Amino acid sequence: MTRYLLEHPRELVSLKFFGERYGSAKSSISEDLGIIRKTLQDWGVGKLETLPGASGGARLTPMYSADNAKMVIDQLVEKVDDESRLLPGGYVYLSDLLGDPEVLREIGRLIATQYEAQDVDVVMTIETKGIPLAQSVAMYLNRPFVIVRNSSHITEGSTVSVNYVSGSSQRIKKMELSRRTLKEGANVVVVDDFLKGGGTLNGMKSLIDEFGAHLVGMNVFAEGQFEGERLIGECTSLIKVDSSDNQFSAKPGNYLATVFD
Amino acid sequence: MTRYLLEHPRELVSLKFFGERYGSAKSSISEDLGIIRKTLQDWGVGKLETLPGASGGARLTPMYSADNAKMVIDQLVEKVDDESRLLPGGYVYLSDLLGDPEVLREIGRLIATQYEAQDVDVVMTIETKGIPLAQSVAMYLNRPFVIVRNSSHITEGSTVSVNYVSGSSQRIKKMELSRRTLKEGANVVVVDDFLKGGGTLNGMKSLIDEFGAHLVGMNVFAEGQFEGERLIGECTSLIKVDSSDNQFSAKPGNYLATVFD
Repeated sequence: MTRYLLEHPRELVSLKFFGERYGSAKSSISEDLGIIRKTLQDWGVGKLETLPGASGGARLTPMYSADNAKMVIDQLVEKVDDESRLLPGGYVYLSDLLGDPEVLREIGRLIATQYEAQDVDVVMTIETKGIPLAQSVAMYLNRPFVIVRNSSHITEGSTVSVNYVSGSSQRIKKMELSRRTLKEGANVVVVDDFLKGGGTLNGMKSLIDEFGAHLVGMNVFAEGQFEGERLIGECTSLIKVDSSDNQFSAKPGNYLATVFD
Repeated sequence: MTRYLLEHPRELVSLKFFGERYGSAKSSISEDLGIIRKTLQDWGVGKLETLPGASGGARLTPMYSADNAKMVIDQLVEKVDDESRLLPGGYVYLSDLLGDPEVLREIGRLIATQYEAQDVDVVMTIETKGIPLAQSVAMYLNRPFVIVRNSSHITEGSTVSVNYVSGSSQRIKKMELSRRTLKEGANVVVVDDFLKGGGTLNGMKSLIDEFGAHLVGMNVFAEGQFEGERLIGECTSLIKVDSSDNQFSAKPGNYLATVFD
């Protein structure tokens, strides 16, 4: 039962379904759900709601307690805070972390926590390095994710494209999304790996407008420093990196203040 | 305990660790592990091994029974077998499936089943559409994954690159991988979304050679038809699509025969 609920997060599963699946009485299922609820709460990794009535059931929402979130973010900061990650141009090497299942699970659960009480229909990202993050968030939200692409690819069918100004390089680029992948009115969470000028995130915002969809929130793994005004409004970052004067340091982003205050 | 083992697949967890974490006696832990083992087995979704002795513990390996694998593949075939997926040039629209958490969980578990008894250090893929698959396989193998890129990206640091012949278009292209991401001697499983001529997979094979790493196996989600000889040797496909004469159909690939016979 734990396994089933964990693999179907945020989904209302009827007690009748469990009863038939496991051939148990309703009372013993309720008892087991009580144990699962308490365990999730004690460990600060999720909540289990049980809704009464004929259309009721149990729903497991993976999420971190504030204490756990702080601990996980501190660990991420420690992993990133390493001068050898600094690359020319103020970029930061993060590919090892964005390819680590454990780190991706943590990031997915952190970002999913932010939207625990909100309706999200789809997670959006842009190729390439945002994909692992978007997938991980999508897994915990139990929703599909869509990948915006930088140039035309023959395997996508008809697409909608927008031009955008890359905030850091000031060049005009084009991004596009397959027409079939996003529905009008969908609630979208945008996820990317790194925020510099915000031009890319802003482009995804225009794309969401083009599709008549609704932006719920924007999240990045790391926020870099940027001189001047960013092109975007609110964006939640897990960590913040500072690479001025060839010094490199990482610290927590605005996530904790945004989600838990 | 179930949650911990599910989130740390293929990892040997000592009984002492569980005892301290949950404050339970060794006997009740053994009893609970027995229940978990039986449940996984009954549902055909994994195996739990317990190793005796001081360095022993419990290890959960997610995998499908042959029956489940067949059922899941039949469902995938049904989802793909839809003429509206056919795109010009014999390509197939699969982005919706490769962005669906449930489908990705199934594919990840299927491919992980194939390597259940083998040492795998890293999963490799090439951008863009192979990434969700590689990540999902990596989650179930509990190993990192690396993304080979098509062109030089400034955020990667020093890279190793190889030229390869794209089997379907017969053009020479270049792929590269950040030097830091793959270690000499590593055991690599290559995963991609679609196999046509095999040139891309072959390129990754050369890249693995360049790094002095070892190829364990190659897997694709879908195998298309290809006239002439493929550039690669063995590759396991979950499904096979046929789009000759503007007719489109999907059927199971060679997975079941490769893994269970």
